[in-house]
Amino acid sequence: MATSTTWPGGSVVAFGGDYNPEQWPRETWAEDLALMRKAGVTLVSVGIFAWAALEPREGAFDFCWLDDLLDLLHAGGIAVDLATPTASPPAWFFATYPEARVVTRDGTALGFGSRGMASPSSPAYRRASVRIATALAERYADHPAVVMWHVHNEYGAPVGEDYSPAAVTAFRAWLRARYGSLDALNSAWGTAFWGQTYGAWSHVGAPAATASVANPAQRLDFARFTDHQLRACFVAERDAIRAHASQPVTTNFMAAECLTTDLWAWAREVDIISNDHYLTAADPRGHVGLALAADLTRSVAGGRPWLLMEHSTSAVNWQPRNIAKRPGEMARNSLAHLARGADGILFFQWRASRAGAEKFHSAMLPHAGTSSRVWHEVTALGADVARLAPVQGSRVRADAAILWDTESLWAQGLDWHPSVDVRAQERIRAYYERLWLDGVTVDFAHPAADLASYRLVVAPASYLLTQAAADNLRAYVAGGGTLVVSFFSAIVDENDAVHRGGFVAPLREVLGLTVEEFLPLRAAETTRLAWADGDGDGGRELVADVWQEHIALEGADVVATYLDGPARGRAAITRRRHGSGTGWYVSTRLGIPELAPVLRAAYADAGIAPSDRPQDVEIVTRHGDDADFLVAINHGDEDVKVHLSRGVELLSGDPVTGALDLPAGAVAVVRVEQADAGGGGR
Amino acid sequence: MATSTTWPGGSVVAFGGDYNPEQWPRETWAEDLALMRKAGVTLVSVGIFAWAALEPREGAFDFCWLDDLLDLLHAGGIAVDLATPTASPPAWFFATYPEARVVTRDGTALGFGSRGMASPSSPAYRRASVRIATALAERYADHPAVVMWHVHNEYGAPVGEDYSPAAVTAFRAWLRARYGSLDALNSAWGTAFWGQTYGAWSHVGAPAATASVANPAQRLDFARFTDHQLRACFVAERDAIRAHASQPVTTNFMAAECLTTDLWAWAREVDIISNDHYLTAADPRGHVGLALAADLTRSVAGGRPWLLMEHSTSAVNWQPRNIAKRPGEMARNSLAHLARGADGILFFQWRASRAGAEKFHSAMLPHAGTSSRVWHEVTALGADVARLAPVQGSRVRADAAILWDTESLWAQGLDWHPSVDVRAQERIRAYYERLWLDGVTVDFAHPAADLASYRLVVAPASYLLTQAAADNLRAYVAGGGTLVVSFFSAIVDENDAVHRGGFVAPLREVLGLTVEEFLPLRAAETTRLAWADGDGDGGRELVADVWQEHIALEGADVVATYLDGPARGRAAITRRRHGSGTGWYVSTRLGIPELAPVLRAAYADAGIAPSDRPQDVEIVTRHGDDADFLVAINHGDEDVKVHLSRGVELLSGDPVTGALDLPAGAVAVVRVEQADAGGGGR
Amino acid sequence: MATSTTWPGGSVVAFGGDYNPEQWPRETWAEDLALMRKAGVTLVSVGIFAWAALEPREGAFDFCWLDDLLDLLHAGGIAVDLATPTASPPAWFFATYPEARVVTRDGTALGFGSRGMASPSSPAYRRASVRIATALAERYADHPAVVMWHVHNEYGAPVGEDYSPAAVTAFRAWLRARYGSLDALNSAWGTAFWGQTYGAWSHVGAPAATASVANPAQRLDFARFTDHQLRACFVAERDAIRAHASQPVTTNFMAAECLTTDLWAWAREVDIISNDHYLTAADPRGHVGLALAADLTRSVAGGRPWLLMEHSTSAVNWQPRNIAKRPGEMARNSLAHLARGADGILFFQWRASRAGAEKFHSAMLPHAGTSSRVWHEVTALGADVARLAPVQGSRVRADAAILWDTESLWAQGLDWHPSVDVRAQERIRAYYERLWLDGVTVDFAHPAADLASYRLVVAPASYLLTQAAADNLRAYVAGGGTLVVSFFSAIVDENDAVHRGGFVAPLREVLGLTVEEFLPLRAAETTRLAWADGDGDGGRELVADVWQEHIALEGADVVATYLDGPARGRAAITRRRHGSGTGWYVSTRLGIPELAPVLRAAYADAGIAPSDRPQDVEIVTRHGDDADFLVAINHGDEDVKVHLSRGVELLSGDPVTGALDLPAGAVAVVRVEQADAGGGGR
Repeated sequence: MATSTTWPGGSVVAFGGDYNPEQWPRETWAEDLALMRKAGVTLVSVGIFAWAALEPREGAFDFCWLDDLLDLLHAGGIAVDLATPTASPPAWFFATYPEARVVTRDGTALGFGSRGMASPSSPAYRRASVRIATALAERYADHPAVVMWHVHNEYGAPVGEDYSPAAVTAFRAWLRARYGSLDALNSAWGTAFWGQTYGAWSHVGAPAATASVANPAQRLDFARFTDHQLRACFVAERDAIRAHASQPVTTNFMAAECLTTDLWAWAREVDIISNDHYLTAADPRGHVGLALAADLTRSVAGGRPWLLMEHSTSAVNWQPRNIAKRPGEMARNSLAHLARGADGILFFQWRASRAGAEKFHSAMLPHAGTSSRVWHEVTALGADVARLAPVQGSRVRADAAILWDTESLWAQGLDWHPSVDVRAQERIRAYYERLWLDGVTVDFAHPAADLASYRLVVAPASYLLTQAAADNLRAYVAGGGTLVVSFFSAIVDENDAVHRGGFVAPLREVLGLTVEEFLPLRAAETTRLAWADGDGDGGRELVADVWQEHIALEGADVVATYLDGPARGRAAITRRRHGSGTGWYVSTRLGIPELAPVLRAAYADAGIAPSDRPQDVEIVTRHGDDADFLVAINHGDEDVKVHLSRGVELLSGDPVTGALDLPAGAVAVVRVEQADAGGGGR
Repeated sequence: MATSTTWPGGSVVAFGGDYNPEQWPRETWAEDLALMRKAGVTLVSVGIFAWAALEPREGAFDFCWLDDLLDLLHAGGIAVDLATPTASPPAWFFATYPEARVVTRDGTALGFGSRGMASPSSPAYRRASVRIATALAERYADHPAVVMWHVHNEYGAPVGEDYSPAAVTAFRAWLRARYGSLDALNSAWGTAFWGQTYGAWSHVGAPAATASVANPAQRLDFARFTDHQLRACFVAERDAIRAHASQPVTTNFMAAECLTTDLWAWAREVDIISNDHYLTAADPRGHVGLALAADLTRSVAGGRPWLLMEHSTSAVNWQPRNIAKRPGEMARNSLAHLARGADGILFFQWRASRAGAEKFHSAMLPHAGTSSRVWHEVTALGADVARLAPVQGSRVRADAAILWDTESLWAQGLDWHPSVDVRAQERIRAYYERLWLDGVTVDFAHPAADLASYRLVVAPASYLLTQAAADNLRAYVAGGGTLVVSFFSAIVDENDAVHRGGFVAPLREVLGLTVEEFLPLRAAETTRLAWADGDGDGGRELVADVWQEHIALEGADVVATYLDGPARGRAAITRRRHGSGTGWYVSTRLGIPELAPVLRAAYADAGIAPSDRPQDVEIVTRHGDDADFLVAINHGDEDVKVHLSRGVELLSGDPVTGALDLPAGAVAVVRVEQADAGGGGR
Repeated sequence: MATSTTWPGGSVVAFGGDYNPEQWPRETWAEDLALMRKAGVTLVSVGIFAWAALEPREGAFDFCWLDDLLDLLHAGGIAVDLATPTASPPAWFFATYPEARVVTRDGTALGFGSRGMASPSSPAYRRASVRIATALAERYADHPAVVMWHVHNEYGAPVGEDYSPAAVTAFRAWLRARYGSLDALNSAWGTAFWGQTYGAWSHVGAPAATASVANPAQRLDFARFTDHQLRACFVAERDAIRAHASQPVTTNFMAAECLTTDLWAWAREVDIISNDHYLTAADPRGHVGLALAADLTRSVAGGRPWLLMEHSTSAVNWQPRNIAKRPGEMARNSLAHLARGADGILFFQWRASRAGAEKFHSAMLPHAGTSSRVWHEVTALGADVARLAPVQGSRVRADAAILWDTESLWAQGLDWHPSVDVRAQERIRAYYERLWLDGVTVDFAHPAADLASYRLVVAPASYLLTQAAADNLRAYVAGGGTLVVSFFSAIVDENDAVHRGGFVAPLREVLGLTVEEFLPLRAAETTRLAWADGDGDGGRELVADVWQEHIALEGADVVATYLDGPARGRAAITRRRHGSGTGWYVSTRLGIPELAPVLRAAYADAGIAPSDRPQDVEIVTRHGDDADFLVAINHGDEDVKVHLSRGVELLSGDPVTGALDLPAGAVAVVRVEQADAGGGGR
């Protein structure tokens, strides 16, 4: 089923958050409603952790409180995203079905008293979760407050893999369906290595604790299976809802943060894409990570608007050091999501919890109450969001794409690879940040997807690349595209087996090379490389680390050469014309500044003009039917002037004529009629 | 029952240690006795690990060897602290009752072959421990050598929490007794958060391994329960002894080192307070940690003298690097304990063990024998201790107190707090060390205790502070006291729930502020603060780290302001007059030197005059009925001169007239008749 | 049974590697054979992981493929080292006998799907492994390709200790056999400490998870038992083979890397010594570690030639950063093994695996195929090895020995020792590397072995030294030997109990001292020591770290004195004349450069002349019946000239007359007729 184009709330950008009224006495509900209206809240998610409140004993439901609450919210004009509470089964569930507990790789059964679902392979859990979802859908299908359904919460967090007996049984069945025969399984898993050939299906198990490393293809399949089981839980609940209700169904992703789920596959199952995002406090440039997650979310949504289901007004509570947001930072974060396609800005959570594991998590209404800085900024943001209704439904366009394949990330995360310093997500972030700094808006794309609409495709971490995906990339380049491939790509096939022909063989033609041998560097070792003569960067030196390779050239031009290290004198960066396009290869780990000349040259091949926007100013355009909406965010400490088309700044209502003063920390959203559109980047 | 005022050995300061004769052939016993007499030993603890020797098969006792040994010791004039051996049940116990093994949070049952008791919730263990305690008491109640009883050993070490089935059953019963109803439990634990509401007592369990963090209130109660179960074991043995014997009963604490037990509660159950203390080798100022532990021990003893049941003559064996004591250090350590209230100086252990896990632990009689440095210092110390008999029974008085609440330490140690860099014990030590350097002798006090006798009360780590305790502090200040509160105090109530009204709300009146938001700093980040104009420190800059806060002032005066960081320009240190007293608040982590001006100002408010004693010289006074005993210890490398009243130095017998030469490393104990008392500090 | 003097392949140095044809289709086999012949392969190990292929269901064998393969190899002139596949039991084995899984100390049963044997104490495993070994021996006893047998693979890796119920039962039986009575066990284990006395055999168990540290003597015995069980598995298979076949039997050791097995005992059981060696990538001087392992292998072989069963052509895959070998490095490594006694140079593995855990491990035939650098170097090495046939059977002689006692390494690795910075293998490597740099060829020797043939014996890590071994060392010195003892030696007896008389007491006479107390230094603390006046090093200062001691001199001369630290002013290095020999004692941790003057003085006592060979040039001589073979390896970056006797360089065929030019990275093997022998070192 295709996902909806936007949220069902009509013509405004949604604003609100998770609302957990079961934690508070009823007298607090009225205060909540009054304050929500003051803050401009239009949408709340209700019931995410309410299973025990809704079904206090197995099969005995108590909907009275929820009836009252939904009526109250509806009367107050607040729409509801109604949750199934299946992320936290009640105490009675685990007491009645102890075999439904998730079991770790080492065999520890994870008990009750925290957060975290039961085994996704447990029949008892499947029955109980479908029952509660059905009961909710039957009762509230026609409730006017309910505009959408929120199944479960953050599938895959805090626990994904499960080694319970039920999981082992289900894994075996999944494998039979996937492979048909034991011979096919033995072949796919390469069980001839280390004498692991299976002679009976009943001997096949999960890759639990082993004496040395477990079979990597088995582990890769177990990751696929885990994703499949979680998705099957979602589908079962979704279908139970659809049997009674017509509102769209979502579940909140954790794009780029939780790799347990393969979002490309999940996106096909939901009606509305929604995402949770939290800054990493230790990351000094967390707003770049935010942009990455937002772009990834939009990409799995196929470019359609999506909802930011959760983020935080200030600090979270589960990181080592939970840094509070600075004044204005919450608004910059919120509008950066909006800039990249979000049509709703929601928070975890409405009112800070007094008790429990997350009492130090910030909220829209903090412990300090309505006199606080956070509350004042929340109400101001609510007002700003209301002013941005025209943006709703508009779309972002990108000339460049970064490849994202969850299966490759799973495979690259397995044991016994050439160097622990090679980390897939680090490379994705580095290339992403280079493009961000250069003002190039990007999509993410699966390597087997249609890439024809992109001038530039970057592959920072395509360790697992199927032959079919490689053929797709070759066709893309042959058709005129520019492809930039980072090292340790195109190494293994879908079974984590080295491609015949050796490393990078599937991209041999498009890159004009293969890789004979990996030459990882020692811890903290660096290497220098020199740009070849013949262009403007001739003789320029770059510093890199972690990795070199022994490249076997098969037609590629050498763009830069190693000056030292085990590959001294050999090719470091190459460029290959193939068909109408170009294939670049970067065989070492360049830092973000050092990537600049490489991508500058690739932009030239691709016909992309990087933006000359001021440093630390983020500018993204959403394209509507008649107007474009240019969102400009100044993340820096200096006031700047941004040059752009004539338009109207929506937050202030002021006209803009060619230049916009953007103070340090400020955000502007400029509506530009399409007739007037011009500069400002895509 | 009130604790005894001193040990039952009469008029001398006890000297000796743990004696484990079962490790040696009988022929060694005679040598031991001769050497003990040479060393001045007056008291030994016997039988701590002798269960297997006393009850080789279940119910079959062998007391012959102990009869002989006690007779031998008595004949030699050495008193005995007779132990129940229940810290190490025999092999037969664990083989017969495998269900009595302690189980870890992850479900591993801890087996035999080390040290460490059985599950404190095991009925079989309770029966067996009471049986052996009863048998010992029956047999030795009237033995003239036995002057006191030593139950078990270091309750809570090496293992406290137990997740065995017996523990879960007992936890449930304890909870029923504590809460009466499930509603009360659900409310106290805040189970509405994350949907953890319990509908049946049988569903409630221990906070064992969970997918994400466990309910913090549940964990806090499990810590209380663990303490309760251990104490119940003690009480059962103590009562078994009291049924037959009249000598006082002790058990050896590990004050300030092992937080499993709440010493305020334990102190109410024992007749004599005794403590074990070992230096932390990695701590370059371990003698300050020693003083802290000694002051805490005296405080839980209600100011009465106590026994140093164990310390070491030189290195221990269980730290990463076990640093040997330097010549003279053992005597300085021993007399520092005495200075702070110890009426007995005992060691683990008399004779170094040839085999087992602690063979590299130093002893009174080391592997190197009687020609060794250690032996010579032990005999010299024995002679010195004999000279200090007059000190016995005298008491220490303190004008200042530091708050110590084990429940708060438990709660602060739970997961998902704002910053991992905030550590309760670090703050306690920092404030303690500042007071130590300033020559201010301190007690420790529970926050709900009567504080009226103190001029100054410091709260370095009162994260959990009940409303009742906060009221107590308010009354203390209103009545004229000076209170210094460090950040992250008065945050949660007894159920680890954030106080209504927000952070620090219970102390709002006394401090004149609340805290709107925590602003933890990044790893290794520092901040500067400037002392406000208007007093002698005006403009003075201090450096701090770890933490800032957004303080909402409600009447407090700003004493220092942040110069940078997220709280730049805001209040950092405040002072509030309340009633007849003063409340100080310090919202960041100041190092020990940086605390000096803060406490100097607080001393002024409190009317405390810090000592001008030389750097690294420790001076504490014990007050007797007719005379004071001033103990002066030079921890430094320089010879110093100490000014004090006329008196007699007890170790040398020399008269002192106004000044005392104290060479580097030396200790003096000066008896000052109360008629002559004056300088030298309390 | 004595080990064979060399491999059974006749008159050439073996060349080849592990061959796992079951991973490839039959059409690949022919290509393999052709390429093997091209590379000069003469010997391959077959079937190491082939159990599932040979016995696809329990008791049902499929030998057809192996019949064909052996015929093919034989037809191609390639000899076979035929393996029993018992290091990796098939899936059916673990499914049928789940109780045969290895259990960790924490109670986790290690499952199928990796590499690693079943419990060595499992009766089912013993039966199954003997059955497959018998079947192979019956079938291939007379196959002309099979020249030797290869039992199992790397006993002790990746897992050694096993806490399964079968292991506990076997441990109890082993203890009964060792001790005869419980009294003897209680005495040996020192169970009186911590009240661990056993009253019934059924109460004795394995040292699994405990609350504090487990009894060290129990752990030491469990290490002995583990070694014994693994060896019993080997012996059972070996005897099954011998019942049918007459070819010699080996199993591949991991000398110096895997301490689970006591190689001195294993060497007595095998017919041919073989070893696996892999460089440690993080070690900048890995070739010294290689030399150490080779010398240790030759030593356990009693000086007879041995086979290098596995090493790598380039990078491995299981280290954090798997550094590829540089051009020429593989040859230098191979010939360094040959120089130290190897008569065969074999690799893991012939053809790189496409799938599985080790696909990134280098191979003779890499993923990059026959155009690669690695393949070219492999074929060149094969040709060189063929030229070295005359070296086969010749022997290395050493004037010096380093003590190596696996039991002492086990004991020193236990918990709660004085300092975590004291590591036995670090000291062995440091002394070894000093001798390597000085050009002194060494053997390793057990401390109880006959040492009379050595001028110098070094004891870098003899923590556990029995009285009998100490007597042996005393006799060695009395007879004229020179002994150098490093600190923390002669501390405990065979039961890990401190020697009566104190530390170092068993060597009191030969060293002229005991040690009164250990004085470990703090982390990163250093100390200086000064060489005593009176010889050429008078006043020279050395820097050391980790450790000082309080030495009680009993006749030793003080050679160097501590200038600072807790032992300031005391003896640091001593020398004692005893009988006709000399005993040196070094009481601190000296780095490799700082060991130079100490060993220079000891060489003088021993009458050893260190070599003046160029820095980083390794020269070792193998002595044949008529000729000596001097192997010279230049590990440095500079071309050098080596002076030596007249001879013929075997790789080039060139005559050598007095001097040999040895370019950077090069290796030369010079045949010197014994009539012409002279310089060049032993």
